[in-house]
Amino acid sequence: MSRIYNFNAGPATLPLEVLETAQAELVDYANTGMSILEASHRGKAYDAVHEEAISNIRELLGISEDYAVLLLQGGASMQFSMVPMNLLSPGKTADYTNSGSWASKAIEEAVKVGNIHIAANCGNEIPTRVPNAEELALTPGASYLHITSNETISGAQWKAFPEVDRPLVADMSSDILSRDFDMSKFGLIYAGAQKNLGPSGLTLVIVRKDLVEAAPKNLPTMLRYTTHIETNSLYNTPPCFSIYILALVTRWIKKMGKATLYKQNVDKAAQLYTAIDNSGGWYKGTAVHTCRSDMNVTFRLPTEKLESAFVAEATKAGFNGLKGHRSVGGIRASIYNAFPTQGVTDLVAFMNDFQRTNG
Amino acid sequence: MSRIYNFNAGPATLPLEVLETAQAELVDYANTGMSILEASHRGKAYDAVHEEAISNIRELLGISEDYAVLLLQGGASMQFSMVPMNLLSPGKTADYTNSGSWASKAIEEAVKVGNIHIAANCGNEIPTRVPNAEELALTPGASYLHITSNETISGAQWKAFPEVDRPLVADMSSDILSRDFDMSKFGLIYAGAQKNLGPSGLTLVIVRKDLVEAAPKNLPTMLRYTTHIETNSLYNTPPCFSIYILALVTRWIKKMGKATLYKQNVDKAAQLYTAIDNSGGWYKGTAVHTCRSDMNVTFRLPTEKLESAFVAEATKAGFNGLKGHRSVGGIRASIYNAFPTQGVTDLVAFMNDFQRTNG
Repeated sequence: MSRIYNFNAGPATLPLEVLETAQAELVDYANTGMSILEASHRGKAYDAVHEEAISNIRELLGISEDYAVLLLQGGASMQFSMVPMNLLSPGKTADYTNSGSWASKAIEEAVKVGNIHIAANCGNEIPTRVPNAEELALTPGASYLHITSNETISGAQWKAFPEVDRPLVADMSSDILSRDFDMSKFGLIYAGAQKNLGPSGLTLVIVRKDLVEAAPKNLPTMLRYTTHIETNSLYNTPPCFSIYILALVTRWIKKMGKATLYKQNVDKAAQLYTAIDNSGGWYKGTAVHTCRSDMNVTFRLPTEKLESAFVAEATKAGFNGLKGHRSVGGIRASIYNAFPTQGVTDLVAFMNDFQRTNG
Repeated sequence: MSRIYNFNAGPATLPLEVLETAQAELVDYANTGMSILEASHRGKAYDAVHEEAISNIRELLGISEDYAVLLLQGGASMQFSMVPMNLLSPGKTADYTNSGSWASKAIEEAVKVGNIHIAANCGNEIPTRVPNAEELALTPGASYLHITSNETISGAQWKAFPEVDRPLVADMSSDILSRDFDMSKFGLIYAGAQKNLGPSGLTLVIVRKDLVEAAPKNLPTMLRYTTHIETNSLYNTPPCFSIYILALVTRWIKKMGKATLYKQNVDKAAQLYTAIDNSGGWYKGTAVHTCRSDMNVTFRLPTEKLESAFVAEATKAGFNGLKGHRSVGGIRASIYNAFPTQGVTDLVAFMNDFQRTNG
């Protein structure tokens, strides 16, 4: 088997040993005589998987008992609605920051639910960036402040989170579990699993339980966080296989040690940004230096024609998924937790060669 | 490997050859150098899977171009809300039939959305049954009539669907693709995948496109059927792996031939009901004869103590998941499409033995 380097933005590369374990166990899970795909979500075998995934997340993120860890469906896109439906008190306002594509999608859904104030807007700036804490125009008494911790498309990332006097809510889809942060500073975080956590079809939500108790009783049962808190995410059949892979991925992180992983993430990104900065301006980073994402490294070449040639040659050389998002163009190298350092080193060599040949 | 007989109600048994194919392909999918779990949902490899799943469903159910086939998340429980949100016109009424646990859950969510009329209520009757077409008290001009084609918990099934002058909407979670029906008589059907279609985390919705065009514009984007119709279920990242297994399961049905499969389903159920009826009343079917489900065969023994002993001994003998749902007790044998005939024959032998020893 020749494994390629998969720079896709999500679904994204998974640890090879996770895939190999899943493969070995796929037809007969733990001698149960059935696949984990066939196991009842109310049975012992699956229950252990469910509990392992949750307890690994709790341990890795240092989550206190004040918070619930929920395993839901619908992606971050469903959370864009669930967050205001549950957290935005009637008559109050929620503050949102607009830092790009994903933040604006969150805002689009929130305005359907209640009063939204844009506390900072740099969503259309180029080079791309996230707001500075100082420029936030906060509404006194707002229900919460929503941020997008990492803009997957533009490659801009909050490097330090703002300290505010109301619950902080973050879409962490593309950088959850990639670096240290203090969960106690947040009211709620959410993340689609398909970047750093596992396969698609699973959404991780971590929520301070007291914040959602007062959510309107007439919400659809599936859209109330309390439904899932009270049932430990087993109100209806959960996405069992995606949760199983989440258990394996978090087990892999625990084995490696999160400090090692987090340092590796910084080092991988630094290799690529150094290559960009040392190219004499031939490669140009898309994001403001202070907001450069460690997960999605975005850059441009001198012309779109060169960008197309870069992607085509890279693909031939075994580097998959480097084309930037259709909405912005350019190049994007997504290098989530499971992306190997060697792949980054090899891409840097490829970039240098490509510049030498075409520069 | 010793494969057991898995009578779980869902997630449920899958065809062994589907599991073996998924296992063989898990680490390197179709020589792409990556797992299908890692493939971009906007890339060629996954796109072919997505299209195969949809086109197999279209072909197997004979679906015309007036209908969209959607691959969503959230289970039937999310559809309980989406159906009235999209189909119940303001000021109008929707008719619902109450045939048991799942129908009442659908009703519970619908009343949060608009005016609901219960056209027939036999939800608490024992023996369990679904309504007769003749007893339906329909609201003139109602937006739709909702039925639950098969009550997974009580084992009661609509054997013929009512002919009505408004769109018929059905929760087919536990009997989709198990028997012939005429899709053109329906406005919308939906089904969680984890019984007859594949693993959990995927919900199939088939909807007549003209019925949902007028849905309120201020619905959450994720809860509008038009969002998913316009994007071919790729508005956001779909549950790719569950859809991949759906593609394999529907491929398996096409290979076997749906006529063969449907006949096999009737034969399997008949074997069990015959055993029940020939037991001299020792085993008692839970559902009215004319509504007996071909998917979930429910029955009681003379005492709860004997039921516990039955489940315990059956489990030891390799028959898993026979305990009735916690809300009703008794025994339930779920024998979906992928459940092998031999398993039914063996269970009948076990039942006869058990009666001889304990009767």
